[in-house]
Amino acid sequence: MKYELYYWPEIQGRGEFVRLVLEDADASYVDVVREPGGYARLKAVLAGERDGVIPLAPPVLYAGPIVVAQTVAITSFLGDRHDLAPRDERGRLAALTIALTIADLVDEAHDTHHPTSVEARYEQQKPAARERAAAFRRSRIAKFLGYLERNLERNGDVLVGNEVSYVDLAAFQVVEGLSYAFPRAMARIRGEIPRLLTLRDRVAQRPRLLRYLTSPRRLPFNEQGIFRHYPELDA
Amino acid sequence: MKYELYYWPEIQGRGEFVRLVLEDADASYVDVVREPGGYARLKAVLAGERDGVIPLAPPVLYAGPIVVAQTVAITSFLGDRHDLAPRDERGRLAALTIALTIADLVDEAHDTHHPTSVEARYEQQKPAARERAAAFRRSRIAKFLGYLERNLERNGDVLVGNEVSYVDLAAFQVVEGLSYAFPRAMARIRGEIPRLLTLRDRVAQRPRLLRYLTSPRRLPFNEQGIFRHYPELDA
Repeated sequence: MKYELYYWPEIQGRGEFVRLVLEDADASYVDVVREPGGYARLKAVLAGERDGVIPLAPPVLYAGPIVVAQTVAITSFLGDRHDLAPRDERGRLAALTIALTIADLVDEAHDTHHPTSVEARYEQQKPAARERAAAFRRSRIAKFLGYLERNLERNGDVLVGNEVSYVDLAAFQVVEGLSYAFPRAMARIRGEIPRLLTLRDRVAQRPRLLRYLTSPRRLPFNEQGIFRHYPELDA
Repeated sequence: MKYELYYWPEIQGRGEFVRLVLEDADASYVDVVREPGGYARLKAVLAGERDGVIPLAPPVLYAGPIVVAQTVAITSFLGDRHDLAPRDERGRLAALTIALTIADLVDEAHDTHHPTSVEARYEQQKPAARERAAAFRRSRIAKFLGYLERNLERNGDVLVGNEVSYVDLAAFQVVEGLSYAFPRAMARIRGEIPRLLTLRDRVAQRPRLLRYLTSPRRLPFNEQGIFRHYPELDA
């Protein structure tokens, strides 16, 4: 069975958290919307033309008869299947807790450029975006990353359990994304998150991820995704 | 073993999704912060003074050695334990998919009164709130509730599987919350979501929930919670 991933083909976005798990697991998958005719297939999925739960938005993963949408639902499912998640209940719930908290940080990063309307363009909401981004830089980045740092301090080299899990891959991705979008803000807090930066570097050196990250499959960050670099928002 | 729930004691908020599952399951629990000395205990939990994963924010649930934070992580955990979740993998993942999508709607409802800063007061961000609420009323409510309606149309009387699950309780709560916060906007779309309204009524009549909802344990909606009624945001 090949996994089918449905996600926007031009951006890393939320789908990247899924791609990282698939790549690190060396799982067989098709990134459907990057294939010819893929957009029509995504449209059919969102229109409920396939069996199972109807997803509201990408990312969506099909695994044989299983359908799952929502980043953390997908990555925890893949983590369980591919030995990238703790096996005990206590660890699995700790992983879910941290992964969902990282997802909150991703949402807040998104809202820096879309504070007043999810559907309008950034250019139509610039004044509010400046305010939101200032608050995000001032307190939210440090709050969330400091939270990850504290959990690393408690748990050891990885966020949960003894081995790298999907949660550590998510932590890598959010640090990369924030470093792209807010290089100045991130430069100011580097000193407060040494363990997290070490984890980021360690994840980036995992052989399968390194191969992926240096391949054309890894899309560059850009200003259509979630992590956007607008200098005026990183003052 | 008694569950310990940690959540803000003055509001329904995200904790209410957890309370509903606990109440419907007739589970033995303490709503810790509503007890004398509870705030100090919450503070200790967030400061990492207890074992296990450190939570960033309430709601947090302790179940013996298990610690779990984040609304959907908690409610899916409780659903699995108390027969309020599908038992098969396909159903469990469908449940997680819909529950996380409802959580996104809750986040967007929150952002209508906090568009530019999570930490500043509503009164400090009123102009942006008007814009955000207008966009939310104009397209987001119908998008999300229509999504739930479509899944009910496909699945039957409940959102996933054949029995009421934690996802249906969450759907009840989000409809109640939106009806409180945006009565005019909700009046306009009632006709488009008949199945969802029927589900809401059915959930409200479950004997244990009815007992809870009419007890003093059910806090009223108010303007400190997530679902706030500001007439200017429901024009």
